[in-house]
Amino acid sequence: MSELRVAVIGVGAMGAFHVDSLAHRVRGARVAVVADADADRAAGVAAGVGARVETDPIAAITADDVDAVVLASPGAAHEKQVLACLEAGRPVLCEKPLTMDEPSALAVVRAEAATGRRLVQVGFMRRFDREYAALRALVESGGIGDPLMLHCVHRNPAVPEHFTSVFAMADSVVHEVDCTRFLLGEEITAVTVLTPRASSASPAGNADPMLVLFETASGRLVDVESFVRTGVGYEVRTELVAERGQATIGLDQNLVLRSAGRWGGSLAPDFVVRFGQAYDTQMQAFVDAAARGTVAGPGAWDGYAAVAVCAAGVQAVTTGRRVEVRLGERP
Amino acid sequence: MSELRVAVIGVGAMGAFHVDSLAHRVRGARVAVVADADADRAAGVAAGVGARVETDPIAAITADDVDAVVLASPGAAHEKQVLACLEAGRPVLCEKPLTMDEPSALAVVRAEAATGRRLVQVGFMRRFDREYAALRALVESGGIGDPLMLHCVHRNPAVPEHFTSVFAMADSVVHEVDCTRFLLGEEITAVTVLTPRASSASPAGNADPMLVLFETASGRLVDVESFVRTGVGYEVRTELVAERGQATIGLDQNLVLRSAGRWGGSLAPDFVVRFGQAYDTQMQAFVDAAARGTVAGPGAWDGYAAVAVCAAGVQAVTTGRRVEVRLGERP
Amino acid sequence: MSELRVAVIGVGAMGAFHVDSLAHRVRGARVAVVADADADRAAGVAAGVGARVETDPIAAITADDVDAVVLASPGAAHEKQVLACLEAGRPVLCEKPLTMDEPSALAVVRAEAATGRRLVQVGFMRRFDREYAALRALVESGGIGDPLMLHCVHRNPAVPEHFTSVFAMADSVVHEVDCTRFLLGEEITAVTVLTPRASSASPAGNADPMLVLFETASGRLVDVESFVRTGVGYEVRTELVAERGQATIGLDQNLVLRSAGRWGGSLAPDFVVRFGQAYDTQMQAFVDAAARGTVAGPGAWDGYAAVAVCAAGVQAVTTGRRVEVRLGERP
Amino acid sequence: MSELRVAVIGVGAMGAFHVDSLAHRVRGARVAVVADADADRAAGVAAGVGARVETDPIAAITADDVDAVVLASPGAAHEKQVLACLEAGRPVLCEKPLTMDEPSALAVVRAEAATGRRLVQVGFMRRFDREYAALRALVESGGIGDPLMLHCVHRNPAVPEHFTSVFAMADSVVHEVDCTRFLLGEEITAVTVLTPRASSASPAGNADPMLVLFETASGRLVDVESFVRTGVGYEVRTELVAERGQATIGLDQNLVLRSAGRWGGSLAPDFVVRFGQAYDTQMQAFVDAAARGTVAGPGAWDGYAAVAVCAAGVQAVTTGRRVEVRLGERP
Repeated sequence: MSELRVAVIGVGAMGAFHVDSLAHRVRGARVAVVADADADRAAGVAAGVGARVETDPIAAITADDVDAVVLASPGAAHEKQVLACLEAGRPVLCEKPLTMDEPSALAVVRAEAATGRRLVQVGFMRRFDREYAALRALVESGGIGDPLMLHCVHRNPAVPEHFTSVFAMADSVVHEVDCTRFLLGEEITAVTVLTPRASSASPAGNADPMLVLFETASGRLVDVESFVRTGVGYEVRTELVAERGQATIGLDQNLVLRSAGRWGGSLAPDFVVRFGQAYDTQMQAFVDAAARGTVAGPGAWDGYAAVAVCAAGVQAVTTGRRVEVRLGERP
Repeated sequence: MSELRVAVIGVGAMGAFHVDSLAHRVRGARVAVVADADADRAAGVAAGVGARVETDPIAAITADDVDAVVLASPGAAHEKQVLACLEAGRPVLCEKPLTMDEPSALAVVRAEAATGRRLVQVGFMRRFDREYAALRALVESGGIGDPLMLHCVHRNPAVPEHFTSVFAMADSVVHEVDCTRFLLGEEITAVTVLTPRASSASPAGNADPMLVLFETASGRLVDVESFVRTGVGYEVRTELVAERGQATIGLDQNLVLRSAGRWGGSLAPDFVVRFGQAYDTQMQAFVDAAARGTVAGPGAWDGYAAVAVCAAGVQAVTTGRRVEVRLGERP
Repeated sequence: MSELRVAVIGVGAMGAFHVDSLAHRVRGARVAVVADADADRAAGVAAGVGARVETDPIAAITADDVDAVVLASPGAAHEKQVLACLEAGRPVLCEKPLTMDEPSALAVVRAEAATGRRLVQVGFMRRFDREYAALRALVESGGIGDPLMLHCVHRNPAVPEHFTSVFAMADSVVHEVDCTRFLLGEEITAVTVLTPRASSASPAGNADPMLVLFETASGRLVDVESFVRTGVGYEVRTELVAERGQATIGLDQNLVLRSAGRWGGSLAPDFVVRFGQAYDTQMQAFVDAAARGTVAGPGAWDGYAAVAVCAAGVQAVTTGRRVEVRLGERP
Repeated sequence: MSELRVAVIGVGAMGAFHVDSLAHRVRGARVAVVADADADRAAGVAAGVGARVETDPIAAITADDVDAVVLASPGAAHEKQVLACLEAGRPVLCEKPLTMDEPSALAVVRAEAATGRRLVQVGFMRRFDREYAALRALVESGGIGDPLMLHCVHRNPAVPEHFTSVFAMADSVVHEVDCTRFLLGEEITAVTVLTPRASSASPAGNADPMLVLFETASGRLVDVESFVRTGVGYEVRTELVAERGQATIGLDQNLVLRSAGRWGGSLAPDFVVRFGQAYDTQMQAFVDAAARGTVAGPGAWDGYAAVAVCAAGVQAVTTGRRVEVRLGERP
């Protein structure tokens, strides 16, 4: 199986993160081409991962040595670039926003439909977060009945000056838009924004925090606290209120459920759930070191010491006595 | 960069997990050879990942098309197989136990030392768990002073009949042995096992639960509750008691610290900490789908709907009014 | 010091609770008179606490053997009864609502002002809850800056049929009204109620849950989820969002604070905070038993066993050995 | 019903706390006599609560105007004083330790048995703590099966110099002795103390922390971390490990249960459980103020404002509109 050759368009902070992901953490792909309006930046990023540089994004999208495209360019460039991907028949992961306004976004939807294929993925990454996935699975299980409300919180410790309430709507509240649609499985039909007394950290004339209200097609209600200058930390929290229970994610402790008189979470059923990620991380560390002819992490001495202690432990459990451990000399 | 060719020896539950990790979740390696005493099982696993089968583990270890070895064979086979890896100069990830007794384990340590290279990694995967790593980082930071005690809990919901207290010592308490050495940075010098009244779920004559006590070279004390038939869940918890604070991991909420009159944890500083894993999972889903000429996850319509709702949101925040969202027809 | 003689008017569920509190848990008072429209119920309650019965509430309020009044009668009776208390110069604890409409409530305010004394206390008991008190103390300390928003949740597991959304407003949301005023220290200037899709447990035509929005004089915003048929439990939760931190109460774990990158709570500084209530409960149990010439709780044998075990413990700590405990025969 | 007349012997910190409890928080008793070796201290305390002073503790115990005795004198005085209470037929609440050694404690047990009455209550106040009571109720319910182990933690932030490991055994570990007996319902048969490397905050030659191990008659095992110079806070925590579940108290969040794959706690079933204490505190505040001819807490204006806001709320919920609240002028 050969590796997927990916062109990454735009290598600011987000694009650079994607390049790093493709180069070091994702299996089955490599960064083939890097394009950015800043040629030096593109060259720097490309050099680090053995990719070539294209100055023209459309040329990168349509190049013969490219199988798929990741778009992390400015939003204003998305429409033209996504359409180019569709024309070239190339799968594209497009960072939000899809385009800058509703008519152009609908045009992209129609252009994709005309290809008869699914080629556009939008970067709403929360759908791939295990907590959001667990919350949706809970909803789909029907275990707590029909959802009625969502209470959402989106907080940043601090943001740059240009991060106005309008910007917040497009840059961070947009994630709550998608989560609402993902968790409730229906469209949003109305939006209201309430702007309480602003934080003194908010630039003059700007509404931060704000409370955004979504109504959905079936009449459900979603409230979103958007507060991007809390001075505290990055916090994204969602509480789903359903007919027979409530569930909260984003507390750093998996899904906490309230139902039938109790609150709490589930314990891992086995070591795979608790430590599966650690096993993979261990294996990646081994593979990376082995490629250099060596190993990483706990070594032979650690294995030896464990064998010696466990042997003493077995003796202790069978005799009921305290057993001393005497290790050989470490070479 | 070519992929590391790995031989996996032993494909029971653990070995199959490693094969799956190498084939689908780890970057830069592929399973080249599978060996198992059960030839049918080996063939089945190998077929799934495009590997070839070797019946002789030593042949697999020394094969020309193998760069590194993962040992998930029975513990009794480890000594011979690890020594073969050392002789062949092949990095090896060896599941615990390193060998079956203390002299043979020391022999492995010496054999590796004789090669002048680090070639043996032992499968103490907890060192790669983010909570254990965070706890060790806390200790190393000196922020809560010198560690004095560890309270450990290792619980399984249920285990097979053969899982006696002696077996538990080698199979699960061994992880606490390594965690003790990893967290405290010194050797264990004595072991005592206390066996309270056994659970009625414990086979006759068997001690479950048990309380294992470790003393370390500098006089620290570690207690381990090992209870493998709780009927509850898989739980691994460690509380480190230091001179100026205590820290607990394994509560499914990252590290909880008690110091200076307060208990609690840290909030994510930014989206990378909170959602970095989701970004990588998203990218893997994109790469896997793009390799089949399509995409996965949220599509163009989701991007369109978000653009439409955010446009309404911007109007709402600037006018202070409720704004209805009218979507075009979905193609 | 003589005991305060209290008349309790209305001994439905709430009034009976107050009678019990006055008779058994509060110091310095006794129930002198009980009045209720249901004479049998009044007689039953009065007999249990050695009070006399009055059939006419005004007669009870003005009786010579009454120092103070607790009003737990229906809301429609409050206006007349509170005014009678004011006229008689008797302190009154009046359950909410003060009266049934705004003009009559204002009339009570003016009548009290005319007496030149504070005589009316309204039963907003949350101000006496340690979590609400801690939250207000936090606000007043200025430690997390100026409050900007409150997110409130008020949930009941189930309520009777007559508990409509209008009833909920007066019976349960009224507590959030007072908490808002208590925590923010200013008046509410506008109310909006949003009614999402109703729970199937809600009677036809009734809005449950609802989201109530309060605006305050200085522009702060409060949202209240009122959901009285959750099927889950009784939950009252408040999150205060301030300029430099957020604090939540109602999680059954005291006040949880988010500030400066961390979440968590405070540990008790000493045994008085942790066990002060237990000491008082112990003393009450002793006093109640001693009044009958005996004692309750742990007895001499428990004291003896503790002395014997601690003596063994002292021997164990000084010798480093396991010490057996041999108890004398229990008489 | 006349008040119980109590003599308090010894008014150091603990005795003064008991005097305060009897005088202000407990119903049905008053402090009649105060005795203390320090006559000035006794006089000061007695004056505050209208009690008289006795210089001779035995005279206080046997006085005609005394119905019951609270002993908070030094432990060395307990034997003689408790025996005097028994001889006088007076119920006594004796702070731990009952006496200074095992033979004298047994003598007290026998002397009480000879009276044919229960007259001695020992001050193990944790039995009156709601979390310990809940844990014992859980054990007795049989819901998590037979208890097998207890893990206990007793931590102080700091203690005076004289608080040695021997002192800790008698002063703080003694509480774990009683909790063990209370929760498991059987006697302790052996004690072992393990002394890890001491904290640098521990005086030279002193063992702090220590790990105390109790074995019980039926073979259960209890481990107690006693660490009295943590620099962190006052923390008393108990985890009970039973055959089909584990339960922990002392986390400031009521009882947290692990069973059947889940962790968590129970939600309050109703407002009495959640706010019952607040109701009593409110009533006490009312009674205390009413005795002075006035009231405390929320007043008529608070009741008026709530009525006005709720009236607006009712209008809002019935019209679906935002309704402004216009308050009258505050007198």
